[in-house]
Amino acid sequence: MVGIRPGTSLGAMSNVLRVGLLGCGNVGGALVSLLVEDAERIAIRTGIPLELASVAVRSQSRERDVPIPPGALTTDAAAVVADPTVDVVVEVIGGIEPARSLILAALKSGKPVVTANKELLANCGAELFEAAESAGVDLLFEAAVAGGIPLIRPLRESLAGERISRVMGIVNGTTNFILTKMSEDGASYHDALAEAQSLGFAERDPTADVEGYDAAAKAAILANVAFGARVVAGDVYREGIAGVSEADIAMAHKLGYAIKLLAIVEHNEAKDDLPETVAVRVHPAMLPINHPLASVRDSFNAVFVEGAAVGDLMFLGRGAGGMPTASAVLGDLLDAAHNLRAGGAGRTVTLRRTAIRPVDDLRSAYYLELEVADRPGVLHAVSGVLGEHQVSIRLMEQESLDDGPVSNRRARLVFVTHPAFERDVQACLGELRHLDVVHLVGGILRVVGA
Amino acid sequence: MVGIRPGTSLGAMSNVLRVGLLGCGNVGGALVSLLVEDAERIAIRTGIPLELASVAVRSQSRERDVPIPPGALTTDAAAVVADPTVDVVVEVIGGIEPARSLILAALKSGKPVVTANKELLANCGAELFEAAESAGVDLLFEAAVAGGIPLIRPLRESLAGERISRVMGIVNGTTNFILTKMSEDGASYHDALAEAQSLGFAERDPTADVEGYDAAAKAAILANVAFGARVVAGDVYREGIAGVSEADIAMAHKLGYAIKLLAIVEHNEAKDDLPETVAVRVHPAMLPINHPLASVRDSFNAVFVEGAAVGDLMFLGRGAGGMPTASAVLGDLLDAAHNLRAGGAGRTVTLRRTAIRPVDDLRSAYYLELEVADRPGVLHAVSGVLGEHQVSIRLMEQESLDDGPVSNRRARLVFVTHPAFERDVQACLGELRHLDVVHLVGGILRVVGA
Repeated sequence: MVGIRPGTSLGAMSNVLRVGLLGCGNVGGALVSLLVEDAERIAIRTGIPLELASVAVRSQSRERDVPIPPGALTTDAAAVVADPTVDVVVEVIGGIEPARSLILAALKSGKPVVTANKELLANCGAELFEAAESAGVDLLFEAAVAGGIPLIRPLRESLAGERISRVMGIVNGTTNFILTKMSEDGASYHDALAEAQSLGFAERDPTADVEGYDAAAKAAILANVAFGARVVAGDVYREGIAGVSEADIAMAHKLGYAIKLLAIVEHNEAKDDLPETVAVRVHPAMLPINHPLASVRDSFNAVFVEGAAVGDLMFLGRGAGGMPTASAVLGDLLDAAHNLRAGGAGRTVTLRRTAIRPVDDLRSAYYLELEVADRPGVLHAVSGVLGEHQVSIRLMEQESLDDGPVSNRRARLVFVTHPAFERDVQACLGELRHLDVVHLVGGILRVVGA
Repeated sequence: MVGIRPGTSLGAMSNVLRVGLLGCGNVGGALVSLLVEDAERIAIRTGIPLELASVAVRSQSRERDVPIPPGALTTDAAAVVADPTVDVVVEVIGGIEPARSLILAALKSGKPVVTANKELLANCGAELFEAAESAGVDLLFEAAVAGGIPLIRPLRESLAGERISRVMGIVNGTTNFILTKMSEDGASYHDALAEAQSLGFAERDPTADVEGYDAAAKAAILANVAFGARVVAGDVYREGIAGVSEADIAMAHKLGYAIKLLAIVEHNEAKDDLPETVAVRVHPAMLPINHPLASVRDSFNAVFVEGAAVGDLMFLGRGAGGMPTASAVLGDLLDAAHNLRAGGAGRTVTLRRTAIRPVDDLRSAYYLELEVADRPGVLHAVSGVLGEHQVSIRLMEQESLDDGPVSNRRARLVFVTHPAFERDVQACLGELRHLDVVHLVGGILRVVGA
C-alpha cells in the first residue's frame, strides 16, 4: 500500500488514507485497535483503506496494550502533523495546548482534522472553525459531545434546514449514573459518587463532572452546532448536582418526576423589536416521568432536540468510554476521506455573535422545598411571599417532619409553581430565607419538558 | 434568481437549486410550505437557496391548502423530470409505478433524487441504487424509514465503519399507538384500533400497518443500509399485532415486560465454515421494561442499533406525519445541493447477495400462554412436551380462570423459556395443541433485548 502525497486526493480504492494520531490514552488506544484489527473489513465495506501512519505520545516508555505498528510511535506530535505522508490528523490529547496549536498547524497545511476535544472546542471553537473554513478542509468533532452517539452530524447535516428551538441533553454519564443510583437504589449522593468512583465512571476529583463543567463545555458546542451561535464554555450558566438530596428525589418520584442533570440550549429568533438570543445552561432539573429523557439510565447519554417541522427527536447511547468514542472518530475519519476524494470539505460551521439571554430572564416552572415551623399561619405567610413576586403555585405538599413538642414541630413544604421568571423566584427565596417561620430553604429545581 | 443549467454545479451562493416535486399529498404539501415560507431563512443558514420549480400532481382541479407558486402546478410528472431547469427531483407519490420509472429517468439524466417511498425502495432498491451509482448522482431516502428521525444518514455515514450486529425498530406509529393504548388504558385491540382510526393514525383499512407490511418494507431498507444486504420486502418474516390480547399485555406487565411491534434485522458474519447471513423479521415482541425501546409511547418511532464498538444507540422521533417527513426530505435536499456543489455525489449504497437465515433457525426466549384443564398432572404433561423439544423453562405462572365445578375448571399457564430454536418451539406448540388437557394455545411472543 502506498501513501498518497499532499495535494493529491484519494482517487482510487487502492489509495490509502494515512492517519496521524495525536494522543494514545483511552480513546486513542481504542482507535488504534479499530484501525489495525478492523482495517480490512472497513476497507471492503466503505471502499476506504485507512492506515495508521504514526502515533504521538508523551512517553514512549509507557507500556501500551494496543497494537501500534512498529516504528509508528513517536513523542514528536508536531512532526506527525508536518509529515507529508500523513493525510489526516486525529487529536485525542485533550486540553487547550498543545492541542490547539497542533490542530491549527494541521488545518493550515490543508489536512483535515478529527478531534474529540470538547474543552478546546468549547473555548476556541470560533478560531478553529474559521481556520478550517479558510483552509477548505474538514474539522470534525462527532466524538466531542455525547461520545459515540451520532449527534453532531445529524444536527449539522440532516437538520441543517430545521428551525431548532431547543436542545436538551444528558451529556455527562457520571452524573447520570449517580442520579440513577440515588433514584433507583435510594443511595445518598456521597455513596452513589463513591460507587461511580470505584467503577471508574468518576474521577478521584469529580469536580468537572458533578459541578457541571463537563456538561457546560458540551452545551457551548451544542449551541455552536444547533444555532450557529458564538458561545463559549464560560457563557454557560452552571449548577451541579451536589445539592440534590435523597429527599428531593423521593419527592420528585412522588410527584411524577425524575431528576436529571441537563445541558439546555435554547434559541429565540429575532421578533418585532427583540433581537435574536440564545440561552445556555446546565443544571439539575425535574422532568415528567414519561418524558423520553426521564428513562435514560445509568451512564447513558441522550440528547433531545425540538424542531419546528421535525417535532421531538432523541438520540441515545454511550457518551463516554474508549470504544464508543473511537467509533465516532472512525465515522469522522471516513467522512474526511470521502470529502478528500471528492476534492473538498463537507459542511462548515460558521458562528455569529448572538446575545446570550441572562438566566434571570429564564421562565420556568420551579420545585421549591422549605422546612418551616409546623404551626397555623405558616403556609399563609409563605404563600404570601410567593404571590407578591408573581410566583403562582400549581401544587403544594406539606408533611410533618417530627413529632416532638408541638411548639417545636417542623414541616416540609413543597411547592411546584406555574412558569415564573428566575429573577422573581430568586427574589422570593431571598425573602423567604429571612422569614422567622422558615428554618431552611432546601432543594430548588427547575421543571422542564412538561 | 436564475436557475442553473444541467451540467453546471451550484458554484456560488447566488445559484439557486431548483426543485421538481412529484406528488403533493401530506408530505409534498408540507414540503411546499417549508420551501416557500422558510426559503430565506434556509438560504441564510445553509448558504443554499432552494426554489420550488414545479409540482406534479394527479389532478390540477383539487383544492390545495399549500402555497404553490403560480404556474408551478402540472399534471405532467415526466415533463418535470425532463425539465432542464430542474436540478433535483423529489418523489413523494408513493407506490411502485410511475414512481420507479420517473426516478430512473431522473437519475439517468444526472439529477439527484430524494424519495420518501419505502414500498419502492423495499422492492426495487438494488435497481435504483445501481442506477444512482452509474449516473454518479445521489439517491437519498432519509424520509423512507422512521419519518423525520435522522437514521439513514447516521447509519450510512457516521456508522459506516461500525460492525453492526442488530437493528431493532419501532417503525410503525399506528401499531405503537394501539399497543400503548392497550397497555396504558387497558383498551382492547379493537377499541384501540378504532381510536387510532378516529384520530387519523390508522387507515380505514389498517392491514398494511397492523399486519406488519409497512414495518416489513422498512426492515428490508434497514438491512440494505445497515448491512449492505440485498433484501426485499418479501424476504421479511412477518407477524402483525392482531393476535396480541389484553391478557398478554397484562401478563407482560406483571412479568416486567412491554409488548412492541418490532422490525428486527440481524447480521452474522461469515465464520469458520458458516456463510454470512442476515435475519429479517417483523413481529410483536416482549421487551424488558427498562429497555430503551420499551418506553417509546404513542405514535413515536424509535430505532435501536447495536454495534461492536459504539455499543447501544437509539434514535427516537416522529415516524410519520407531513411536517416531520418533509423535514427529512429537506435535509436530503440540502445534502444533494451540497454534493452537487462539490461536483459529485455522497456515499453510495452497494448491495450484495447475502443468505437470509430462515425464521426456523431463530434462537430466542419465548413467552407462551396456554389455557389448560385445572387439575393435577397437567403441568407435568405440558412441561414434558417442552422438555422433549429442548425448550427449557425460565419461569412459569399459573392462575385459575374460573370457579365452576372442579371437574371443568380451567387455568392459564404462562411460560417464559430460556433461549430456544423457533423450530423446536413450533414443534412443541404443534404437539401441545393435540394434548387433551390443553384447551387453547394462546399468545406466543418472542422475548428480545433481555
